[in-house]
Amino acid sequence: MTLQEALEKVKGTLSQQETYWHAVSLINFDRETICPKDAMERQGETAAFLSNQAFRLEKDPEYIAAAELLYEQREALPEFDRVLAESIHRDRRKTKNISPELDHEFSLVYQKSYMDWLNAKQAADFSLFAPSLAAVRKVQERQVALRENPLPDAYNELLGDYEAGMTRETLDVVFDRCKERLIPLLKKIQASPKKIRRDFLSREVTDDAQRKLAEKLLSAMGYNFDRGLLATTEHPFTDGLAQNDVRVTTHFYPTQFISSMYSVIHEGGHALFEQLQPAENFEHHIQYNKTSGMHESVSRFYENVLGRSEAFIHLVYPLVCECFPELMADVSERELYEGVNLVEPSLVRTEADEFTYTLHIIIRYEIEKMIMDGAVKTEDLPRIWNEKYQEYLGVTPADDREGILQDVHWSSGFGYFPTYALGNMYNAMYYNRMKQELPVEELVKEGRFDAINAWMTEHVFRTADRREPLVWIKEITGRTFTPDDFLDYLEEKYSKLYEL
Amino acid sequence: MTLQEALEKVKGTLSQQETYWHAVSLINFDRETICPKDAMERQGETAAFLSNQAFRLEKDPEYIAAAELLYEQREALPEFDRVLAESIHRDRRKTKNISPELDHEFSLVYQKSYMDWLNAKQAADFSLFAPSLAAVRKVQERQVALRENPLPDAYNELLGDYEAGMTRETLDVVFDRCKERLIPLLKKIQASPKKIRRDFLSREVTDDAQRKLAEKLLSAMGYNFDRGLLATTEHPFTDGLAQNDVRVTTHFYPTQFISSMYSVIHEGGHALFEQLQPAENFEHHIQYNKTSGMHESVSRFYENVLGRSEAFIHLVYPLVCECFPELMADVSERELYEGVNLVEPSLVRTEADEFTYTLHIIIRYEIEKMIMDGAVKTEDLPRIWNEKYQEYLGVTPADDREGILQDVHWSSGFGYFPTYALGNMYNAMYYNRMKQELPVEELVKEGRFDAINAWMTEHVFRTADRREPLVWIKEITGRTFTPDDFLDYLEEKYSKLYEL
Repeated sequence: MTLQEALEKVKGTLSQQETYWHAVSLINFDRETICPKDAMERQGETAAFLSNQAFRLEKDPEYIAAAELLYEQREALPEFDRVLAESIHRDRRKTKNISPELDHEFSLVYQKSYMDWLNAKQAADFSLFAPSLAAVRKVQERQVALRENPLPDAYNELLGDYEAGMTRETLDVVFDRCKERLIPLLKKIQASPKKIRRDFLSREVTDDAQRKLAEKLLSAMGYNFDRGLLATTEHPFTDGLAQNDVRVTTHFYPTQFISSMYSVIHEGGHALFEQLQPAENFEHHIQYNKTSGMHESVSRFYENVLGRSEAFIHLVYPLVCECFPELMADVSERELYEGVNLVEPSLVRTEADEFTYTLHIIIRYEIEKMIMDGAVKTEDLPRIWNEKYQEYLGVTPADDREGILQDVHWSSGFGYFPTYALGNMYNAMYYNRMKQELPVEELVKEGRFDAINAWMTEHVFRTADRREPLVWIKEITGRTFTPDDFLDYLEEKYSKLYEL
Repeated sequence: MTLQEALEKVKGTLSQQETYWHAVSLINFDRETICPKDAMERQGETAAFLSNQAFRLEKDPEYIAAAELLYEQREALPEFDRVLAESIHRDRRKTKNISPELDHEFSLVYQKSYMDWLNAKQAADFSLFAPSLAAVRKVQERQVALRENPLPDAYNELLGDYEAGMTRETLDVVFDRCKERLIPLLKKIQASPKKIRRDFLSREVTDDAQRKLAEKLLSAMGYNFDRGLLATTEHPFTDGLAQNDVRVTTHFYPTQFISSMYSVIHEGGHALFEQLQPAENFEHHIQYNKTSGMHESVSRFYENVLGRSEAFIHLVYPLVCECFPELMADVSERELYEGVNLVEPSLVRTEADEFTYTLHIIIRYEIEKMIMDGAVKTEDLPRIWNEKYQEYLGVTPADDREGILQDVHWSSGFGYFPTYALGNMYNAMYYNRMKQELPVEELVKEGRFDAINAWMTEHVFRTADRREPLVWIKEITGRTFTPDDFLDYLEEKYSKLYEL
């Protein structure tokens, strides 16, 4: 087999896999948005069958030989092909010892775990989920043990699935630094006499009006509706189903317009990252390489760094007034700005403000490490959860539903949560560079997202699928990864807002 | 191979095929309802790939051996399995000589033809579609010639694809009889001094209000929303994607509420047929056996026979008033009844009233026979179309868009149109029996669709997938198929309405 033949073989297989995944994504999208209740089970079966067909393609000896040849000869390949060879190698390290049957067995554990989590959350009773959580931990350990040359620390393996190159050693330092600075600052904010108006935040507004605003916001950000759409769902997400099909979802709450407004901007950020990535990523089948932390950095950049800035509120204040004329009748631009930046320790991560959000993540990080280390009894977890909420945020859940059961993530394993916090740290770093090169405030005020997005495309999006995160952020900023930019950003913004 | 093994092999293969088709249906549903513009092409590719995977399963020698064994030994099988063996045999007669590659080649012709039709319709220029129409005719001839023991008359083969056992010999007699009775009666209706109020029919109403009415109508009919949903699309359709997933679509026009209202009832009829069929159909993989004519009989039974009756209008008048209070402010129940039954020769089939509808079908039937017989030059078709419209309906299209290009059907072949008219004839026959056994008017007035649907389930739905249409209608009614019940029904209803 020549290198060229190997490349063609591998790309042919990946094209077929992507076709299966495309269908699976559509099924999942349908299930999360409109699927009738009684049709869900069948959809799950069809998705599992198609995923398994895709997985089986990796067991073709000719494909394996081609993938191995490409990896051996990777230095002879042009960059995009070399990245492809490396990313297949990285994936194969994890899956080569797993048969389609075993893969199916694992997926049944995760499916059951998801159902148990749903039921436990509805019943607000962690004990209904505890056995599944223990089973998930076991499966995760087995999956790690089956990898080729696994790291001695299983949790580091899992972290790497979402954020290549990230370790608990790095995160421990980063998160300790966050706690040191954020917890005392939060106490100061809470002690501040500054009063932020909040009565209008719970005023009622129709779904239709919220949809209109959501579409205006996405358009203003530069989201391309010819290559995507906005749908509604229970738990908002963005899905790049195909190169020209990047879908955004949201949820409208009649008395929480801020919630949908910022979820749309957040998902719009994810969507821009997908829509504005290089076409070469698709030609070379590396479009799935970007990490969760990179993705969260972009979504939270648009949502918070830009979206909760004075400049952005200046831009969208007229749109909000136009869509919600009654709600906004007596609300000034300044009041809207302060309202969307209200700091208030709360129990639920997805409703947390920009300032306290990181503390929610740290709690999850500390607990999931303990779980994977076997350093805790499953039945003690709700108590530990509640103690940490009291210690870091000063609040205590009334029950497991608003406590340890609030998030779906652990039903499918560990290692994801830290990427949310890393995203903030990455974007604070590249925001500092962007400000040196662009008049960001002016551009946002004027709605010049074309210029912002062009910078993001060139510096942030372009190389994301070809770099590990720590290399990527260093290339963008010229500096080594640090949480300090983020912590400085928070301190500056909120000291000013709360007149500390 | 034992019979039992053969049965298991065949059912296993069909289960896999249905899984592929399930995914393809979801893709198609997405494309017809929400798919972003630039994502359509990729969706088409994925659907084609999955369809081809399903088609390839039929080429497995073990499957073929199993299918042949079952057919040979079919008399030894229980009824449902025998029906399965026969329907596989019927399908294989058509596909056994067609390779996956040739199947793909044919599908490209149909895809191109569809695009050419779209463009031609937009340009209102038949000449842009004519070459594709000729190509479709050639492909249809080739497909028929490749069948095992094809009928000498290719058009009869195509008819049989949609309506097993139906022939042009039967249809010629049936449709001549329709013309004899309908054309003179239409002239009388047009000459009637009876004035039907129509001003309110074009009053404006919001999409939201129309959606509310549509949902109320479907619920009233007994449609189960746990096993389906209502979506919007350009050209309404119903799709049974899976046993518990039967989706209805409609289109809202702001100034034609009757159009969406009756399209919803029509599609709701299709959906009831799918939702209320025996579970055994799915277990035995014969759920696709019901013919287009059977399906249209049910949809048009709910739409017209029940839906445009005085009893039904009595039932839904309050609902319509509740959803459209301004539109209905000065409209009486009687005026609504007369409005939904207005007879008016028109150019477009899908907007035709119940009375003239059959004439639209006859025109298409006569022309598609000529095409398949090679009895006409392609370029003469628009002229022939227009002449027939003038002769049967007294109207002439201004251009090809509202003339010969209005329907998509011929871009994918011939033989479908007659099933629409046959549906009316079947349902008029079983309606006559239903009336002998049930107090239909009373039940409809009281909204007792449970009783109506139970009768339909027992007599109409239960056996549809196990009988050819002419056997099925004879079993239901005890009488041989005839168009007379339908023609009598029309004559009685419209003589009364137009006071002839």
